[in-house]
Parts: sequence; C-alpha cells; structure tokens
Amino acid sequence: MIKEIAIVRQRNKQLITTHDVVAIEEPLEIQLEIGPANQRTITPLAVTMRTPGNDTELAVGFLFTEGIISSAKDFAEPVSRSLGENKILIRLGEDFEANLDKLKRNFYTSSSCGVCGKESIEAIHQVCTVANAVDHFQIDLEMISQLPEKLGKVQEAFVRTGGIHAAALFSSAGDCIDFKEDVGRHNALDKLIGAALLTNGDESFRLEKAILLLSGRASFELIQKAAMAGIQVVCAIGAPSSLAIETAQSFGITLIGFLKQQSCNVYCGSDRIKNN
Amino acid sequence: MIKEIAIVRQRNKQLITTHDVVAIEEPLEIQLEIGPANQRTITPLAVTMRTPGNDTELAVGFLFTEGIISSAKDFAEPVSRSLGENKILIRLGEDFEANLDKLKRNFYTSSSCGVCGKESIEAIHQVCTVANAVDHFQIDLEMISQLPEKLGKVQEAFVRTGGIHAAALFSSAGDCIDFKEDVGRHNALDKLIGAALLTNGDESFRLEKAILLLSGRASFELIQKAAMAGIQVVCAIGAPSSLAIETAQSFGITLIGFLKQQSCNVYCGSDRIKNN
Repeated sequence: MIKEIAIVRQRNKQLITTHDVVAIEEPLEIQLEIGPANQRTITPLAVTMRTPGNDTELAVGFLFTEGIISSAKDFAEPVSRSLGENKILIRLGEDFEANLDKLKRNFYTSSSCGVCGKESIEAIHQVCTVANAVDHFQIDLEMISQLPEKLGKVQEAFVRTGGIHAAALFSSAGDCIDFKEDVGRHNALDKLIGAALLTNGDESFRLEKAILLLSGRASFELIQKAAMAGIQVVCAIGAPSSLAIETAQSFGITLIGFLKQQSCNVYCGSDRIKNN
Repeated sequence: MIKEIAIVRQRNKQLITTHDVVAIEEPLEIQLEIGPANQRTITPLAVTMRTPGNDTELAVGFLFTEGIISSAKDFAEPVSRSLGENKILIRLGEDFEANLDKLKRNFYTSSSCGVCGKESIEAIHQVCTVANAVDHFQIDLEMISQLPEKLGKVQEAFVRTGGIHAAALFSSAGDCIDFKEDVGRHNALDKLIGAALLTNGDESFRLEKAILLLSGRASFELIQKAAMAGIQVVCAIGAPSSLAIETAQSFGITLIGFLKQQSCNVYCGSDRIKNN
C-alpha cells in the first residue's frame, strides 16, 4: 500500500535530500462476468483510482453499495478472477439479471483513466493542448512558506465549517490571484481553472507561472487537472499519492506536499526552488 | 456555501444543544447545448456533487480539464443558462464538434444522483434492500470517544504516509471488527462493506449494531454507502456536509462529526447516545 521515494525536505530553510513513503494510487478496472451458463459474457463496468489491496472486497462493496447486487448469493463461486495487474473480473451468478445499459451509463471512467499509472499519464498527454514547454522559472522558498497563512486569511467558509476544500492561484510574487471552495476538491480546482479561462480567454490563460495551492491532499485527479491547465508549480497542505508524483514528474511540474511555514517536502521539480 | 443547523455538542462529557454551520453539498446536473445553428441539441453530460456557487466556472473548468473543450472560443455567447435549481446548460459554439458517444460513456453519474438533495436521498431508498427498521440501541459516549485512538493504533499506512483514508467497523462494545485503507475514502468504505458481505454472507451481514468510523470528512457518498449496508451509527473525525446530514436523518442514522477524545458534534440521532 505504500512506496518509498526520494524527496527533498525543507526544515527551517535547510534543504536535504532524503527518503519518504507515500500511499500508492493506481487505477483498477472492474469487469463483470454475467449471464446464463451457455451465454456468459464479460463487460467492463468502471475504472476507479484506488490503493492496491483487497481488490475483490472493493469491487464487491462497490457493486453492493451502488445497488447493482443485493445479496452474497448474487455472486458465482469463485467470486473473482484477476485479469492481470489492475484488472479484476467479478463473476455474477447464472441466475443474476442485470440491466447492462443502466450499468454502462451510470459509472465513472475519467477521460484520463488507463489500466496502469503509465497509461493514465499517457492519456493526459494525448488530450492536453496547452504548451508543454517546461519553464524553469525560480520560486522563492520563503514566499512559498507564506502561502498557507495567506490562504487561511481568505478562506472564510473553511474557517466556519472545517469542511470545505480550497484551491487557490498565487502569482510568482506570492499574491493571491483567485481562490475557490467546494466540498469536492476536484470541484474547487475546476471552478478555479474555469474562472481563469472565462476571465482571460485563451491568450492570457497562461498559468505556467502561477502557483496552485491545494488545501488538502494531492491525488492523481488534481495533478491531471493542473497539467491540463499548464500549471507548473503545485503545493499541497496534505500528502501526495504515488501517481500524483509520477504525473507531476511526467509534466515537469514542481510538486510540494505537507506545506507548512517552517517545513515542506518537495517530491519533484526541486530545481525550481530558490533558497536565499 | 454554508448553512446553519441545530446540533448536540459534547465537551468534556457535557451535552448541550446548540447551532453549527456546515458546508452545503448539492448535486449539479451539467447539460450541453451543441450543434450547428439549425440543429441545436441538448444532451445531459454529468452529475457532480458540489457546493453551490460558481456553477458556470465549475462546468467550464470540468469541460476543459477533462479535455472536452480546449479553448475559450469553443463556447457560444452567453456561455451558460440556468435550467432551474441545480441544473446548468453550457452552450458550445456552432462550429464545435464533439463525440457525444464518448462524452456519454466517460462521465460519472452515481446511481444515487438526483438533481436535488431530496431526489438523491429518495434514489437510495429505492435501491436499498437491507432492513430499514431503525434500532434504537444505545451507544456509550465514553466508548465512542476512545475510537479515534483505537483507529490510530491499527492504521499503520496512514501513520507512515499521512495520505491514506481509513474506514473502520467497531462493535457496540468498542472493539475493532475490521478496517480498510485507501487513497479514496469511498474505496476504503467499499472495501470494508465488501469484506463484511463476503465473510459473513447475507444472514450474518448485519451491520445495524456496528459503528462506522471514518478517518476524514463525511460526504453524501459515504453516508449513502453506509445506508445501503444498514449501518446506523457513523462517526467521522472530520466535518459532515449538509447533504450527508440530511441523508443520515432520512435513514435514522446517528451521525457524529469532529470526533475527538474530549469532544464531538452529534448532527442527528442523538437519542442513541448514552452519557453516563
């Protein structure tokens, strides 16, 4: 469930190269085997980003909590079969009748889901239209360390409820350009990027020198959205996942996690960090 | 973005009735207007659970970060039109060509999404097959307050990475029955419920007297999954959303948030709490 990686750690303005462990995030494709004995068919159901382990339980729980199956008797024996890395086949009983049209319509596959992390990253490269030229501008460590406090000052709803995620854009000088809040962290980021596109249009929709600050953890989905918008510096108050780091690396994004005033971890792109 | 509600607050074993504010969570249905001037069509794209506000920006950002549109020029003027509460129409330009089959396949509509909170809750009642008989067993406040510490002792991956969500089941005596971890909080809960169904089968898949502990916030999706499994007591270390509370109320679930050793908030079902 966890993976050791090399990072640059900042503590009290000292940068050191060290190791850290991060949670593994990988896609899982769930397929269903279904139908009477002589007409068994296999159909893809959903792709979810998950931490590997207990994949059968995850798929069974998903089918149950989404109301597709209602009993342990709905499964065949054995319940599941691995179809290789990150693919699982769930076997439903011969008597089980499912409305496959409904199934196909109802579940999530993001446009950037693959069946391995590499494929997921490749899918973003294929649809990403903003300039991928990596700009090696420098960002000041002292300025970065002030961002959480600056976000705290503007983020009223979180202060009042403790239950809202924020995504904020800062200039490379550390000025807050915009911020948006939502119960869903992906929604907060979509609001922020949508507002920038609507306000600035294509020509000045240039986020290459903006710094994105996320109030929580950094998952694959958030780095995907940042990459689509051409953002090259992402800071998170919480932890990144393994696939978030791999995606950031692939897009030349500087990814900082556990950002506090006195410390942070730099997961990739540390060449942009300037430490006066 | 926020809403005031009545709660029961526990501080140092004193229960008081007071008010609190929570983040609003409501579904948003995004529809697309598309096609040449004489053949404009409207097609539903996705439903997402979000905090109301900046709905146009959210929909535009979603379309951009998922790679459906690649330019501000892809939109018609005006960009959006409200279709009533929680429904928004995004208007794409007459020249814009989209592969609608791809759109329809790729995005998320949970089986329990409606276009208002009430419809979303009703959708769960329709598919929920476990007994809905509300059991008014009592739970001990002192026992509940020990749960976060007990979870911390077993949750190794979080301790090491700071980046994994956990979902745990405890008996009404406070013993940890099972716990699962994942980068996705919904996955951790699906793993837990799937494991209970696979281990116990239908007859002893009885979670009515189990206590569910969530390591993070409680959103609609998590309470939906708990309701499907017949769970009647849900405790979260973080904050609940407005729709999570409404869903818990509708299913007779006791919902506790901000659970710490010395304090917690009871959002509904406080009649189950026994304070010795």
